[in-house]
This record gives sequence, structure tokens and C-alpha cells, in this order.
Amino acid sequence: MKPAPAPARLSLNQETIRQWSLPELVAGCTAAGVGAVGLWRDPVRAFGVRETAKLVAGAGLRVSSLCRGGFFTAADPAGRAAALDDNRRAVAEAAELGADTLVLVSGGLPPGERDLVGARGRIASVLGELAPWAAAHGIRLGIEPLHPMFASDRCVVSTLGQALDLAEQFPAEQVGVVADAYHLWWDERLPADLLRAGEGGRIVAVQVADWVTPLPEGALLGRGQLGDGCIDLRGFRRLADAAGYRDPVEVEIFSPGLWARDGAEVLREVIDRYRQHVD
Amino acid sequence: MKPAPAPARLSLNQETIRQWSLPELVAGCTAAGVGAVGLWRDPVRAFGVRETAKLVAGAGLRVSSLCRGGFFTAADPAGRAAALDDNRRAVAEAAELGADTLVLVSGGLPPGERDLVGARGRIASVLGELAPWAAAHGIRLGIEPLHPMFASDRCVVSTLGQALDLAEQFPAEQVGVVADAYHLWWDERLPADLLRAGEGGRIVAVQVADWVTPLPEGALLGRGQLGDGCIDLRGFRRLADAAGYRDPVEVEIFSPGLWARDGAEVLREVIDRYRQHVD
Repeated sequence: MKPAPAPARLSLNQETIRQWSLPELVAGCTAAGVGAVGLWRDPVRAFGVRETAKLVAGAGLRVSSLCRGGFFTAADPAGRAAALDDNRRAVAEAAELGADTLVLVSGGLPPGERDLVGARGRIASVLGELAPWAAAHGIRLGIEPLHPMFASDRCVVSTLGQALDLAEQFPAEQVGVVADAYHLWWDERLPADLLRAGEGGRIVAVQVADWVTPLPEGALLGRGQLGDGCIDLRGFRRLADAAGYRDPVEVEIFSPGLWARDGAEVLREVIDRYRQHVD
Repeated sequence: MKPAPAPARLSLNQETIRQWSLPELVAGCTAAGVGAVGLWRDPVRAFGVRETAKLVAGAGLRVSSLCRGGFFTAADPAGRAAALDDNRRAVAEAAELGADTLVLVSGGLPPGERDLVGARGRIASVLGELAPWAAAHGIRLGIEPLHPMFASDRCVVSTLGQALDLAEQFPAEQVGVVADAYHLWWDERLPADLLRAGEGGRIVAVQVADWVTPLPEGALLGRGQLGDGCIDLRGFRRLADAAGYRDPVEVEIFSPGLWARDGAEVLREVIDRYRQHVD
């Protein structure tokens, strides 16, 4: 018996089941009735960008986002130029994959620096060059605020409000924001900021994972399966809906526990949990 | 040769050198010319509150704060009553120690709950009973916002702005805020919120530790020695000064690396780093 199709807006971010190859990902999503995937640059480039584009399009899958560009905070001209080069390549890859959106993680503080304001200013400067170029290639940039626990080493943009302050320096068709429940759930300004983002037509992607403790060493791989933590994920999705967001909701969970299991089983669980806690 | 006295505003939080007994702490601070200490309830109660008060007063040390009360987010009446009882005991201990301030950590989400707004509301409700009682005993309560990475399991008050929103529901002589650089450094609203806190006479304690990565498992014991991380600690102290804060600056570092070393050596390093990075 064929299972019921997955919820219409569910998109599977590739990193959630990173044990799958790209062909396994596409086959698994097709079998489960998942209509969209979020892709990451490293596995896509390892498989081949063109080959991935063909595979995904052939299966009728939508690419809800490509992760990720960014890392714009270098203070030296060479670092800035290298970041621009890499991001232009990322834009070209997103375009070839048929993605609308390239997700940007801004970068943390350069080694030895303590100037958050300066680092945030440099992001705007790089976006000024990258955003029009990306738009000309049909790709909208999505600034993703990460949880403040990543402010020093990954992303000096820590709230949706900050991401919007940056995005709004550019036309909405060039730069938007990515709202991930895992990074933003604690922020009492989130409801107002999501509305502001929606009213400006700035929400380019929505992602979900749950918050569980204790955090593991390094904090990066501590995300929880939907429903295992304390985030009101349905409330979050409803806020995004109320802000006018109608596109896929990506499940993006970095969890060694999920990676150690059978991919198809994990996807069944993700779909089930999404129905229970998000849909 | 006697070393130069420690910087006048430096206060040593007891947990920074937790390998020291209370007599060792008092002797070590006296020898190094440190004029104030921040105390914790557990070691103080183990040694005896009265005995601690006598020891500290006999050495002429100021008690810059007592850590900590709080944990107000229980949703059930029994949990709420138990929290109130425990906090009344903490107030009595603070008064006996001659501290002006009891530091409060609000508490996280109760198990199985996902309602941050509700939990934050319950804090205000408990403060409504506790704050006048504490003031009558000569103790001001200090709401300490913790880093958002502790929002689920320790403290649903994540920014200085939120702490002020809570504190301002009560008279300034009853409830203020604690500003710890480790928890707040990432927040772009910090300068404005510190000014707001100062203008309202709400800053009851200032603490410093540095932000270093990677975070250890559980995140709690990952604080860095002053100068080892990325926080502009001098900028933070200057903001507090500009907001009118004139009282001790407590060094509060939870670090197994420091705890494994000779206490006197750690204190010399703390004093040296404080001069280099804070004073």
C-alpha cells in the first residue's frame, strides 16, 4: 500500500538525512510524496551541479533553498574578495539547480576581533555588490539569523530584526530573510519581526527543528527532531502563515542520532512529526 | 614585597575560584587587596551563613551580590509556593551577609511546556509577592538575563530589555537588573538598554567573563578568562559607567580549567587580566 502523500508544504533539507546520497534523497522523497528539498553546496558539488539539477528536475522536485553562501565578515580586502568570488559561484549553482533562494550565513568575528558593529557593517558592504548580481541571475539572497550562541564563530546576525535591518537596505526582490525556528524561538520580538518581514515581502525561506538540551560540545549538532523539544513549532508556522508566507517549510535537523538511522525510517518519522507538531 | 592592591572596583565572584573554601577565599582576597566578593548560597550555607557573615565582615570585605534566587516559572501552585519559600530564605541569607542584592535567575520552561509568554508572566506574578518582602528586609532583587542558549532550561529572560520590562513593573528600590557581559555581549540593543537601566537606577550588579568557543557539552562551564575571548569587556564596562554605574564589577567565570589550578595563581591572573581588559 502506498503511504499517504506527505504534507504539501513539507520540504526536506538534505542535511536532515545526510546519510543519503543525492539519488537516494531524490528516490526517498519521491517515494514518500515529499515535493521539495533544500540542498547543500558540498554534496551537490561532489555529485555535480548539472547532474543534481537533472536528477531533481527529472523527479519533479522543487528546490526550496540552497545552503549556503555568506561568511562576509573578513576585514581584509583579500578575504572580502574571496568571499565575493565564492558567493558568485554559489549564486551560479543555485541558478543551475533551479532554486529561487541562496541562504546566507553572515560569518562570525574574524580571529582576534571584538568589534561586532564593524563586522555587521561589512556584511552590508558585500551585499551591496552581491545582491544586484544575484538578482540578475534570478536568485534572491536570504539572510539567515543564527542563534546568538553562534555570534562569535558563525554569524553576527543573531535576530530576525537584525536580518531585516540588513535586508531592507536592498530591494525586496534582491534580499530577504530566512526564519528558522531553532535559531529564533526564544526571541520575544519574533512575532512582530515575522509580521514585518511578511509585510515587506521578505520571507524567502522558513525552516524548523526543535530545541533540545543539553547542548552537545560545539552546540552545532544539537538540534532535535520535531516534537522532541520545547519550541511551539505549530505556533511558529502559524506566525509565518499570518505574515503571508505560503512556500515550503523546510525540516533542517543536524542530529547524529538521525544520521545513524535508516534514511527512509527517519523520513517517515519526520513526516509523522511534521503532521503532529507543525502542520 | 606586597603586591599593588587590586583595581578598586574588582569583585571576585566565589565561583571563579570554587576550589577555595570560604576562609581561603577571604584570606586570598585580603592578601591580594580585593575589596569585594560575590557569594553563592550553597557554599555559604555549607559553611554557615552567620559564620560567613562574621568572616567576611571581619576582613572588611564588601559582599557585592549573593547568587542566587529565582526559578519562578513553575506552573503549579505547589511549585510556586516552594519557589517563594526558598527565595524568602535567600533574602534572609543575603540580609544576614550584609549584601544589598540577591541575584535572581528566572527559571526555564517547566518540563513539557512550550509557552514562553506564559512562563515570563509567572515571573512577574511571583515578584509581586517577593519584591516588597525583600525590600522590607533591606534586599534589592536583581533580575539577571541569561544568554538565549539557556532559555529553555534555566532562564526565559534572555535580554537586558526583557529584564528591564520585568523590573520596571516594580519600584527601583525593590527590583533592578544584573548585567553580565557573557550573557549580553551579542545583543545590539545592549548599549541602549544599559543606558535605560542606568537612567532608571536599575543596575544592581555588573559581571564579566569572556566568550570562548567551542562551547562545552551543556554550555554552562564554557566561560573564558578575561581577554581569552571576543567580548569587548572594556567597552562593556564603559557602557555601564556611562549609564551611571559606580559599584563593583564582579568577575564570574565558570571554568574547570581555572578550578584545576592554584587559587592564588588564578586570582593573580584575574587581577592582571582585569587591568588589561576591563579597567
